[in-house]
Amino acid sequence: MFSKTILVLGAGRSSAALITYLLQQASQYGWKITVGDAILKHAQTHVGNHPHGEAILFSIDDTEASQTTIALADVVISLMPAHLHTKAAALCIRQRKHLITASYVSDEMKQFDAEAKQLGLLFLNECGLDPGIDHMSAMQLVDRIKATGAEINSFESFTGGLIAPETDPENPWRYKFTWNPRNVVMAGQGTAKFLQAGKYRYIPYQQLFLRTTPVVVPGLGAYEGYANRDSLKYLETYRLQNIQTMVRGTLRNQGFCSAWNVLVQLGCCDDSYVMEDIASMTHREFLQSFLSASEPTEKVVAELFNLNVDGEELKRLAWSGLFSNETIGLTEGSPAKILEHILNKRWKLQPGDKDFVVMWHRFHYTLQGVQKCVEAYLTATGTDEVQTAMAKTVGLPLGIAAKLLLQNKFLAVGVTIPVTFEFYSPILEELNAYGIALHEREVANLNL
Amino acid sequence: MFSKTILVLGAGRSSAALITYLLQQASQYGWKITVGDAILKHAQTHVGNHPHGEAILFSIDDTEASQTTIALADVVISLMPAHLHTKAAALCIRQRKHLITASYVSDEMKQFDAEAKQLGLLFLNECGLDPGIDHMSAMQLVDRIKATGAEINSFESFTGGLIAPETDPENPWRYKFTWNPRNVVMAGQGTAKFLQAGKYRYIPYQQLFLRTTPVVVPGLGAYEGYANRDSLKYLETYRLQNIQTMVRGTLRNQGFCSAWNVLVQLGCCDDSYVMEDIASMTHREFLQSFLSASEPTEKVVAELFNLNVDGEELKRLAWSGLFSNETIGLTEGSPAKILEHILNKRWKLQPGDKDFVVMWHRFHYTLQGVQKCVEAYLTATGTDEVQTAMAKTVGLPLGIAAKLLLQNKFLAVGVTIPVTFEFYSPILEELNAYGIALHEREVANLNL
Repeated sequence: MFSKTILVLGAGRSSAALITYLLQQASQYGWKITVGDAILKHAQTHVGNHPHGEAILFSIDDTEASQTTIALADVVISLMPAHLHTKAAALCIRQRKHLITASYVSDEMKQFDAEAKQLGLLFLNECGLDPGIDHMSAMQLVDRIKATGAEINSFESFTGGLIAPETDPENPWRYKFTWNPRNVVMAGQGTAKFLQAGKYRYIPYQQLFLRTTPVVVPGLGAYEGYANRDSLKYLETYRLQNIQTMVRGTLRNQGFCSAWNVLVQLGCCDDSYVMEDIASMTHREFLQSFLSASEPTEKVVAELFNLNVDGEELKRLAWSGLFSNETIGLTEGSPAKILEHILNKRWKLQPGDKDFVVMWHRFHYTLQGVQKCVEAYLTATGTDEVQTAMAKTVGLPLGIAAKLLLQNKFLAVGVTIPVTFEFYSPILEELNAYGIALHEREVANLNL
Repeated sequence: MFSKTILVLGAGRSSAALITYLLQQASQYGWKITVGDAILKHAQTHVGNHPHGEAILFSIDDTEASQTTIALADVVISLMPAHLHTKAAALCIRQRKHLITASYVSDEMKQFDAEAKQLGLLFLNECGLDPGIDHMSAMQLVDRIKATGAEINSFESFTGGLIAPETDPENPWRYKFTWNPRNVVMAGQGTAKFLQAGKYRYIPYQQLFLRTTPVVVPGLGAYEGYANRDSLKYLETYRLQNIQTMVRGTLRNQGFCSAWNVLVQLGCCDDSYVMEDIASMTHREFLQSFLSASEPTEKVVAELFNLNVDGEELKRLAWSGLFSNETIGLTEGSPAKILEHILNKRWKLQPGDKDFVVMWHRFHYTLQGVQKCVEAYLTATGTDEVQTAMAKTVGLPLGIAAKLLLQNKFLAVGVTIPVTFEFYSPILEELNAYGIALHEREVANLNL
């Protein structure tokens, strides 16, 4: 018999590294890892015939069966789509089990806080990469800077899932889908809210990819960051209420955003309506649907956005086949769904492809009257198209947290995120052993 | 006793001309006009002590009282906010009364079609200005052109509520609020869908005010039109299924759209979130919230949108006080609500102000192998800030339709709109007597 059971819900693309890690730990500690997925084969692929693993069919919509499964676990890790976490949370409350996710705390998840606390349960969220390692690595720096008596004036943080330099060298976007493609196509819809030089600032979707922050990581390359939806809600969480600038966002290789902006401006990322007559439509005709003139599409796009017809933006669009006369291959869909389908033809990870995660923080602070600046970055490279850097950096923090939880290393209970010492210190320490660690450098503080 | 009763629901800004017209007709035909509003004084103001009129307190949310009121009427005209029409419709079904509105047929309204038909009731919608007179005047032309054996290739139609040349001559927008200000601020959100040269075309909000159609009305001025949300749904209604180009939209004076586009691009029309700390905020600070740099706001805006700092766009924004250091005067609100509040300081109709409605249609058609083009336009000028052109052109078609309905001049029943001869012919004829008529001219057909 096994002493403890960890139940992993969802065996999709981000689960490989997590399950590998958990099975290793299970062997060492005599635990059992149960992996449930709505498609049994997905779970079986990851578990194999590991003596400490079990693959099961699992559907959260089958409440009775889900309850029985959860009753047998000590801690549940949900990798399901974010909107399903609350269903898992309700069952965890009923069965008195801990829950860990890599997703943002939703308003619905918050509702479970009081009850979880009362039952002594930990519902730990935002414990993946972004959100996750970004919180932990930032808070380690925040606490260290504050401990010197310094005052933090500015915090900027950008994270991105990119591709490794040796992968697809001719890909001008330096990007492929390493995460839910739909989320990539829909990214940035809504308004980004942040704090800049003491003022609240708002960037709507239509400006987001035009107003990026340049990020240079010495020895790595030139990147650019665009702001995420709501940076303000972390002012309190990060205990940075007196800060002047606070922005969290997404990192891309330089040049990505101005090309992506063309698709945003044209309305290609709209998911609110179904397009007419797409069965025989080509990629080029898809793009033309959002244009008015009958001249060559490349020329029309270039003129509309004041771009060079031979420039980088059009090269990127062309490389992704957006001007091609290839048939789309869908019979119905919103612009967003069709764009995802077209991009996936070139942006799908191929055997041997390696992805590349980059996280970057910059702090400006005042120490004894002197303005200082520190930058820190972290990278991770995928092993292949399955054991991706994305899967590792999302899965390892989840797995480590589950292990520490079973070892009673956490005091916290209720719905929370890993921004305190008890979480970030041991999790970052173990990540370090896996080669996932922040590099820091003091930089000249030219201006705030 | 009165032979018939017309019940008008809602006595807001668009009701003046309708009630005046109905009271005149009531005197002639021995009818009674009951005007109900949630604010009794609004109803009283319009009814005065007219012997054929009665002002009552009316709230559609009080179902029992509403039912009693509707039971006493023969036909109900709803000028309430569009989302309340279905409540009125449900009560009209129960009390077996006809209903007339100036609003777009919603999916909910469509649900009443079968029942209304069964009961022999007419639920006539889209019978104001736009939608309304635009449908009727267009269909009169469509039917006349088709009757010659011609094939219609293209139909473009734009309508706008502007201000008369003698009103506020220094107002560079040539615009004031003559209709629900909130709707003006929110206009164009969503994606415009239309047909152009045989292809479906889509323009998202972020491109809408950049891709306008120039409209010149000889002797009147230079205008520009932007596409309305869904022109495609009228292909069938207008019996124009084989047409190549079909677009309906909103008309503004030339230059309006490129200035308005700045506000759209910055996110000032967003109603999806509440801004922080606005109690002491100035107009200028409101604009700065959507910008990133700390240089003078005018310069930042000009550079961001590639505009001349002394150009027309910035002049318009400045005239509306957007760069002013005046306090906004609200304690909370979304960007859209705050923008409406700021604009209303200069865009509110003042005593003596005259508004100006312009409607413009253009048809391209082929007659015996020859390409032809006809343009038609209609204008109306307000008498003052109460008896506006907008109130007249919305109210008169509603009033005329109600009169004709009581005179049993319509055969149609069910949920419908006035696009057939039995509606447009007598309504347009009577509008003509009020000076509201289309002027036509054949124009050289240079290209399609």
